[in-house]
Amino acid sequence: MTDHDAIATRLTRARNTLRSGDADALVCFPSSNMYYLSGFEDEPMERHLFLFVTPDDTLFLAPEMYDEQIRDESPIDDVRTWSDDEDPTVLLQSIGEELSITGDRLLVDDRMWAMFTQDLREVFPEATFGLASELLADLRIRKDDAELDRLERAASIADSVSESVRTLGKDAIGMTERELAVEIERRLEDAGGEGTSFDVVVGSGPNGARPHHRHGDRAIEAGDPVVLDFGTRMDGYPSDQTRTVVFEGEPPTEFEPAFDAVLAAQKAGIGAVEPGVEAREIDRAAREVIEKRGYGDRFIHRTGHGVGLDVHEPPYITGENDRQLEAGMVFSVEPGVYIEGKFGIRIEDLVVVTENDCRRLNRSPRTWKPLDGV
Amino acid sequence: MTDHDAIATRLTRARNTLRSGDADALVCFPSSNMYYLSGFEDEPMERHLFLFVTPDDTLFLAPEMYDEQIRDESPIDDVRTWSDDEDPTVLLQSIGEELSITGDRLLVDDRMWAMFTQDLREVFPEATFGLASELLADLRIRKDDAELDRLERAASIADSVSESVRTLGKDAIGMTERELAVEIERRLEDAGGEGTSFDVVVGSGPNGARPHHRHGDRAIEAGDPVVLDFGTRMDGYPSDQTRTVVFEGEPPTEFEPAFDAVLAAQKAGIGAVEPGVEAREIDRAAREVIEKRGYGDRFIHRTGHGVGLDVHEPPYITGENDRQLEAGMVFSVEPGVYIEGKFGIRIEDLVVVTENDCRRLNRSPRTWKPLDGV
Repeated sequence: MTDHDAIATRLTRARNTLRSGDADALVCFPSSNMYYLSGFEDEPMERHLFLFVTPDDTLFLAPEMYDEQIRDESPIDDVRTWSDDEDPTVLLQSIGEELSITGDRLLVDDRMWAMFTQDLREVFPEATFGLASELLADLRIRKDDAELDRLERAASIADSVSESVRTLGKDAIGMTERELAVEIERRLEDAGGEGTSFDVVVGSGPNGARPHHRHGDRAIEAGDPVVLDFGTRMDGYPSDQTRTVVFEGEPPTEFEPAFDAVLAAQKAGIGAVEPGVEAREIDRAAREVIEKRGYGDRFIHRTGHGVGLDVHEPPYITGENDRQLEAGMVFSVEPGVYIEGKFGIRIEDLVVVTENDCRRLNRSPRTWKPLDGV
Repeated sequence: MTDHDAIATRLTRARNTLRSGDADALVCFPSSNMYYLSGFEDEPMERHLFLFVTPDDTLFLAPEMYDEQIRDESPIDDVRTWSDDEDPTVLLQSIGEELSITGDRLLVDDRMWAMFTQDLREVFPEATFGLASELLADLRIRKDDAELDRLERAASIADSVSESVRTLGKDAIGMTERELAVEIERRLEDAGGEGTSFDVVVGSGPNGARPHHRHGDRAIEAGDPVVLDFGTRMDGYPSDQTRTVVFEGEPPTEFEPAFDAVLAAQKAGIGAVEPGVEAREIDRAAREVIEKRGYGDRFIHRTGHGVGLDVHEPPYITGENDRQLEAGMVFSVEPGVYIEGKFGIRIEDLVVVTENDCRRLNRSPRTWKPLDGV
């Protein structure tokens, strides 16, 4: 549950920005933006559930069945409800008139579904539209202490599960990727995590060469490099870390030099983090190491992404992003090398930018070698 | 994995509808629509990944790192990729010109995020926009035999877990809702299910009165009515069923008459299902029973929703929907009664409309009484 004082502060900042900027209202849809501004959390849904924020008003338009949940979770007590037998666009129209925003510039949630943005355009044909991130990205990109505390606790649970699962050693041989993924989920729950922050990735052998492979029915073999990428949540805030490990046996001969390149690149990326540096310099620092060692064309994704209420959010650590890093930003540093048909390697930690440099949130061993029982 | 022949058939139908209709192209985003038309499945993501379908062409615009996954999962082999250091809207522009759709009417995925619909509007300022469901809802609403088979298998797994978890009896007393939810997830996996089709709902005592409460830290007490609403997936197709149960002890005296009203309403709703009947007649049949027994104002949601690749999709079983039922449609019938501060009751089965009436996909006992061990 987000603390009510934090929400009040965030709403005040958002309102002040609306007063001074070129947009007139925020229209959020169930998302991290809505949670950040209201404390109400739910999945995106096919029913109309919006949060309106103007310089003077804050209110929900919500299905009747969510009324109590919103009042429980959010300090915002103006909740206008519609029932399943009413047309929600009628209520939408009257709220628009009451707030005098029907001809204004509205910033809609970046992840609002097209079915709802189409509705807004039809109900408010005079309005113009932008994205909520124009206003909210800058508020959300620096994490306060309460947020950092949650991110650190989530990271620490993922670390403990990463370590414990690696001590499976030879017991992991013969397990399918799916079985190992379920085992990881169980251990995250047992360690106090709240579910997973994304589908657990267990990429064994050739499956590891596809960076966004989740898990399948392939059984893990001795000598397989296995990419383990997973996270959990604490009070809404996610963790995200990756280790590439061998549970037992000897990996292919090409593996170790490639692994060393990725680890060196990850350390170089993290070493470059400090306030004032541009995001793309982190990407460059990591990528240069991999290029120098001859794997440049096998590093086929950006070096990292911001992590907050969304597991992928600004700042993105790409070769193009000239955004300067600031204290309180949290992002992943996760270079990888992918050898099609053989194996993949990715090593990922979250870091928080501090006043002078940065601190890693993840501390589990980065070696690929089997860990002894604890 | 969706079968390639089925995809070819669906694409042909979609193309024929585009040829004869008032729209020129479909633009899908990772979603059930994209899976239905291509076999490629992934979560919505913050990178540009679109599927274009025109009367003559079908192609993907995708991040480079998804290239292999798309080729593995989809028979569509025209994949145009962009790397993390390129601007994807440049590729978007050139694809639009190549397909000659820059000034056309484009049907965008109903769940495409606003950040991408805004991009489409900026890159194609001459285009007009509608929603993909205008075309696809009618293709997807009737399930073919392969789809029904998957839905039935998913339902049967949920049924077996529902029955087995109810035999916990007194062992469930003292468990938190979260612990029971995790136990249900484990049993679904053990029974061969693919994850959960939505967050498991365990609504004990007063928490059950909030229809969309998921699960919390409340410990289950003897005599608590507990709403158990969960599902799993088989080959992409979900199950969704609800039972309201008492694990041990005597429920509140107001419980049993309310339960009987809900069960009678559910049976009345299911009894009304046959081809040619309007969806709203199912809602009316169920609602009348609850109203007659004096709980009308406690039944605060629609009676059901279609189930297919999306766990909520057309046909919606509301008081307003005059869509006629047809053989092959699958939807839930799930009336409920919610007594604020005390308990909730919901009973849900999926049904498939058959040539003459309908068949329930769920067969676990609907009684609230404890089940003996099996």
